[in-house]
Amino acid sequence: MEFNLNEDQLAFQDAARRFAEKEFFPYASEWDAKKIFPREAIAKAGELGFCGIYTSETAGGLGLSRLDAAIIFEELASACPSTTAYITIHNMVSWMIDKFAKDDVREELCPALASGILLGSYCLTEPGSGSDAAGLKTTAVKKGNTYIINGTKAFISGAGESDILIVMARTGDPGSKGISAFIVPANTKGISFGEKEKKLGWNTQPTRFVFLDHVEVEEKYLLGEPGEGFKIALKGLDGGRINIGSCSVGAAQGAINQAQQYMHERQQFGKSLAQFQSLQFKIADMVTDLVAARQMVHLAAFKLDSKDPNATTYCAMAKRLATDMCFNICNEAIQVLGGYGCTQDFPVERLMRDARIHQVVEGTNEIMKLVISRKILEVGATLQIR
Amino acid sequence: MEFNLNEDQLAFQDAARRFAEKEFFPYASEWDAKKIFPREAIAKAGELGFCGIYTSETAGGLGLSRLDAAIIFEELASACPSTTAYITIHNMVSWMIDKFAKDDVREELCPALASGILLGSYCLTEPGSGSDAAGLKTTAVKKGNTYIINGTKAFISGAGESDILIVMARTGDPGSKGISAFIVPANTKGISFGEKEKKLGWNTQPTRFVFLDHVEVEEKYLLGEPGEGFKIALKGLDGGRINIGSCSVGAAQGAINQAQQYMHERQQFGKSLAQFQSLQFKIADMVTDLVAARQMVHLAAFKLDSKDPNATTYCAMAKRLATDMCFNICNEAIQVLGGYGCTQDFPVERLMRDARIHQVVEGTNEIMKLVISRKILEVGATLQIR
Amino acid sequence: MEFNLNEDQLAFQDAARRFAEKEFFPYASEWDAKKIFPREAIAKAGELGFCGIYTSETAGGLGLSRLDAAIIFEELASACPSTTAYITIHNMVSWMIDKFAKDDVREELCPALASGILLGSYCLTEPGSGSDAAGLKTTAVKKGNTYIINGTKAFISGAGESDILIVMARTGDPGSKGISAFIVPANTKGISFGEKEKKLGWNTQPTRFVFLDHVEVEEKYLLGEPGEGFKIALKGLDGGRINIGSCSVGAAQGAINQAQQYMHERQQFGKSLAQFQSLQFKIADMVTDLVAARQMVHLAAFKLDSKDPNATTYCAMAKRLATDMCFNICNEAIQVLGGYGCTQDFPVERLMRDARIHQVVEGTNEIMKLVISRKILEVGATLQIR
Amino acid sequence: MEFNLNEDQLAFQDAARRFAEKEFFPYASEWDAKKIFPREAIAKAGELGFCGIYTSETAGGLGLSRLDAAIIFEELASACPSTTAYITIHNMVSWMIDKFAKDDVREELCPALASGILLGSYCLTEPGSGSDAAGLKTTAVKKGNTYIINGTKAFISGAGESDILIVMARTGDPGSKGISAFIVPANTKGISFGEKEKKLGWNTQPTRFVFLDHVEVEEKYLLGEPGEGFKIALKGLDGGRINIGSCSVGAAQGAINQAQQYMHERQQFGKSLAQFQSLQFKIADMVTDLVAARQMVHLAAFKLDSKDPNATTYCAMAKRLATDMCFNICNEAIQVLGGYGCTQDFPVERLMRDARIHQVVEGTNEIMKLVISRKILEVGATLQIR
Repeated sequence: MEFNLNEDQLAFQDAARRFAEKEFFPYASEWDAKKIFPREAIAKAGELGFCGIYTSETAGGLGLSRLDAAIIFEELASACPSTTAYITIHNMVSWMIDKFAKDDVREELCPALASGILLGSYCLTEPGSGSDAAGLKTTAVKKGNTYIINGTKAFISGAGESDILIVMARTGDPGSKGISAFIVPANTKGISFGEKEKKLGWNTQPTRFVFLDHVEVEEKYLLGEPGEGFKIALKGLDGGRINIGSCSVGAAQGAINQAQQYMHERQQFGKSLAQFQSLQFKIADMVTDLVAARQMVHLAAFKLDSKDPNATTYCAMAKRLATDMCFNICNEAIQVLGGYGCTQDFPVERLMRDARIHQVVEGTNEIMKLVISRKILEVGATLQIR
Repeated sequence: MEFNLNEDQLAFQDAARRFAEKEFFPYASEWDAKKIFPREAIAKAGELGFCGIYTSETAGGLGLSRLDAAIIFEELASACPSTTAYITIHNMVSWMIDKFAKDDVREELCPALASGILLGSYCLTEPGSGSDAAGLKTTAVKKGNTYIINGTKAFISGAGESDILIVMARTGDPGSKGISAFIVPANTKGISFGEKEKKLGWNTQPTRFVFLDHVEVEEKYLLGEPGEGFKIALKGLDGGRINIGSCSVGAAQGAINQAQQYMHERQQFGKSLAQFQSLQFKIADMVTDLVAARQMVHLAAFKLDSKDPNATTYCAMAKRLATDMCFNICNEAIQVLGGYGCTQDFPVERLMRDARIHQVVEGTNEIMKLVISRKILEVGATLQIR
Repeated sequence: MEFNLNEDQLAFQDAARRFAEKEFFPYASEWDAKKIFPREAIAKAGELGFCGIYTSETAGGLGLSRLDAAIIFEELASACPSTTAYITIHNMVSWMIDKFAKDDVREELCPALASGILLGSYCLTEPGSGSDAAGLKTTAVKKGNTYIINGTKAFISGAGESDILIVMARTGDPGSKGISAFIVPANTKGISFGEKEKKLGWNTQPTRFVFLDHVEVEEKYLLGEPGEGFKIALKGLDGGRINIGSCSVGAAQGAINQAQQYMHERQQFGKSLAQFQSLQFKIADMVTDLVAARQMVHLAAFKLDSKDPNATTYCAMAKRLATDMCFNICNEAIQVLGGYGCTQDFPVERLMRDARIHQVVEGTNEIMKLVISRKILEVGATLQIR
Repeated sequence: MEFNLNEDQLAFQDAARRFAEKEFFPYASEWDAKKIFPREAIAKAGELGFCGIYTSETAGGLGLSRLDAAIIFEELASACPSTTAYITIHNMVSWMIDKFAKDDVREELCPALASGILLGSYCLTEPGSGSDAAGLKTTAVKKGNTYIINGTKAFISGAGESDILIVMARTGDPGSKGISAFIVPANTKGISFGEKEKKLGWNTQPTRFVFLDHVEVEEKYLLGEPGEGFKIALKGLDGGRINIGSCSVGAAQGAINQAQQYMHERQQFGKSLAQFQSLQFKIADMVTDLVAARQMVHLAAFKLDSKDPNATTYCAMAKRLATDMCFNICNEAIQVLGGYGCTQDFPVERLMRDARIHQVVEGTNEIMKLVISRKILEVGATLQIR
């Protein structure tokens, strides 16, 4: 076992932190308050390779591992979890096209995606199918060399701003095996967008309904084979859960940084807050939980990178634990700052609001428990999942 | 012991609920989103007597008990905790003037306050003195028949919109005994207001700094005697803590109402959410905690009404427990609603944000623990606090 | 509303506390360590009426309310939760016979039960039916004027020491409506007992299997009518849950008494523990939870006494919350005492072990959540359960 | 980063598990119930090298790392945390003598300690100095070539059964720098032992007071130099905390193994417990916490092995988090088993009782928070502790 980052990872981490401090942190509160999608800042992240971290190098990405990506996302998220979470979704889109698209489509799209010139959105969820993703109702009917897609997608991150949509649609029977995945340019005829959702957090990324009304897509834009869409979606999910976990770890890191500093600055009853034992113990617990959450995310990323047969279980555990613990850390940071923690003059309430979203996306934490329990109840599993 | 509301209380409760459903609930989300101070709706509450619930009848109030007030505030807060919390502060102002002002001042101001024609703000907190309220630095220097007040007040609810300020200022030595309380019309020369604070919650009430620059106040506007200001403030605090607790109970009630309804409406995997055992258990725990929180608030109000020598301890316990539990309930309600719970299409995220404020105001919950522990560590106290 | 105990209740409370301090506390640790059933001490409690608190006066009991009983049980349990929990079961047996037995049987048994001369056990649970009590398999077959009972009962408190058993047995179809309740003298031919169970807590009351092999019972010993057994059991359950909640409240009270005292006595780093803020906050939280738990138990008892249609829900909420919170309080008290808390020189570890039992008996806390959720998911219920 | 065990570690793990299943598990409940110190079983563990895991090979140990030791202790503790915890203390004694004793003393004692022929006890705590270990009052006064030791040690694991004591005594000024460490054969004249403590858990290891009355020790039995005793004690503490964390991880693993199996075997309401969603979610959370706790312990062991300057902080975090989480896991396992979980027919209540001890030994978890907060409040520390 080896728990230290290697030199490359330390370098990525440092670069990501410096980037986030310079390009995200000074603006994040304004982006949040005004609901600005920081397309330019994302493009700058793209210049550093952060829009295609685990996209292969031949497709224009950095070709790094999930663990490397987690390390980078943590740093970005410590400044702005909302923007970072969008970037992680974009990375998934970039990776899916690299991995599952026809060669010419990959060549057409991946370099621009990996460098942040084109942005992507992932269209799985529908108004009536959230946790039950395989129950989706959007249809894609083959007609000659094209598919005609009809349906409605809900809660789509980046929708209305992004360029490329990956759309899951039903080409076959009900259930998970009748679903196919399509690449659809966002400006295709027949696509329209709902109003920007008003949300508790994730305010720097627009979330909209996507309406697909007789949208025509060339056959070559199919990802994988017909009927493989849900399998592809599931492959994306494991990584997506690590990513969301990383965003939570980053948010909590940002919150602890703030709380620690405030404890030295703020005086009450003639002492700094850092001198009150109850607050000392509180920050001790916060940092302990943060380290535990980060370890779980790294462990899951490692399992996914090393193709561990139980990677899905580890990813679900990491997402559940990291998002729950890190929300609590952010929320406790508010308490450390007291009244000031509830104002937008300090970033902790923003970090808490963003972190709150993570407990319900990429599979709610209830779905995580379902995934974990299914495995752990197998005979012998309690000795395998360690 | 008798745990049932009496007929009058049932009638108030019913009236308050119907009022809140009609005058608050349909607008509260917009007030929150647009940061509107609903002066008209507050005036309508005033017509029902809700701006002077425990102000004496001779002063234009309803002359009810703290327990009665708690019952009313719960109902109002289930629709809009933020507006209700302001109304509770206004009630405190109304009560303080009734209780401690000179007769002519009472006659001048109370009827208008109790009916919601004039609105009040309570100015205790300063930028450097939050938890350590007695460390305040604003000064009031006597000059003939007037006092000249200089200083800065922070986080003042209603500031910039309200008409009457109660200002705590130092007329004597450092410490709590050198503080006096003044009634100051908000339009007095020398008073100016900071920018509206941007906050996590409580967005329907403006919060501002109040700058007092050589503000002249007639001697008759002193509450009580010189040096009694902090004693008056403390008397207000017990009631204030019950009120905040009530607002939390109301918020949690509103959140549970929503979650329960949603569990019947929302279908996943071919079943309503109400059929999933994990969610059944979650709502069971939520409602159990709500009942416990409400009981604690009612108990504290009863103790205050009956002048129990340990009322301060009960008020601190009620505020601590109710605000913590009810925040959690609101937060769990978001989880029940999943992605929808994070949108502003449903009120639960608003209820959570408002409830979060309650854990840091009217004495942070850390201060509550200080107050409670001081009592419980007295010899014999573990058998007295029951 | 009126939250103060009346004079009678204060007198019972005081009497019960003095009795417990004198007759239980000095011996409870030894009873626990040596697994002694303190029959004499129980008889002394009987002399004060504590073996038939809510048995009617005409049947030899005190004829008090459930709330009165809760107040008494809390005091007894603060010294010995295990012995008190047995006494509460005995009280239920005494009450059931008073309420549902034929007149001559009541006259025969109740006075001796209510005064603690005869002791009772309640035989519902079977090895295969715990939470699913209505699935019991013990049979009672009518034969002339008698019933012949066959079956096995598990986890029976007092078994092997008590004189009178109430046995639930199947006289009809599967399901709850085929069950009848019988009074069976413990020395009836065909009854034998298993080994004393070795348990985490409740060590002052023997728990055994009861084997019923062709046990003949006269028809007059039927409680109520044939087929009413489960209805009678359910009526007992509400009260039983209040009783267990009371025992938890008592245990927590005992633990807090100890912890507070220890905080003053124990010195570390040149200060008493009472001077450490983290411990001050801990005991503040402990006592706040205790007050909340006690309120919930009293509320439920009041609802049962006043025949509130939702009494069952309140009893389940009280049992769930009080047993969970009070276990935690006892457990935290161990932490306050540190290493000493883990020794049997101090009663806190005993109180914790006894309190742990309460989370699984009289319906596990999972069953409580089931009961609560069933009600709260009814239309309109969120406004009824307050 | 590399999260997989290497082949050697997998082999140790497997050997330890098989040993524990065969030599500990079948007897552990009886050892606990009858308070038997299983000297023979410990000697068998010694034959496999488990009594000197990180004692150097030249001194007769296995010469493995702390991480290797953690992996082994986890497996042993899953069968009997109490016996394993004693073995970890013995390992510390073995290691201290290897590391700090004069050469001839090392040669005299280490091989016998490392092979489990001699057993050791560690005598730091005194009746009046628990958390404040440096406040110890036992004295060692030099007289010619010997030291004369007088004082009383409390809560000494193995006392009365072990052969070799390491005794911390004051040779100089008050405070930590006046303390020296001595090796004292347990049968030295002047040493006597108190009664076996009666405890909540850790019942397979005797805990006693050690009275030292004019005990003469040759100078060569000093560990390190005079005045270095507390430094040596602190070096032992980091490892000791990892060890206790490992014992908690093992206990929780044992509890989850049991709970998972029971969920398949136990039927209620016509279904196995494994089919109830609330229990599925419960075990999912239990296993997630277990994985997190194990990771934290492994991380801390790695930091100690690699001489990370922040190792002490990581050890404190691991001990705090692992002992808290794993106690909860054991306690939840009781709830899964319901009434049966409270009986000694299943090991879960024993695992819970043993795990409870871990929260107060080797520095209470409050002391851990003190250690952690001291570091995390340093400037820049929130970016160093990851």
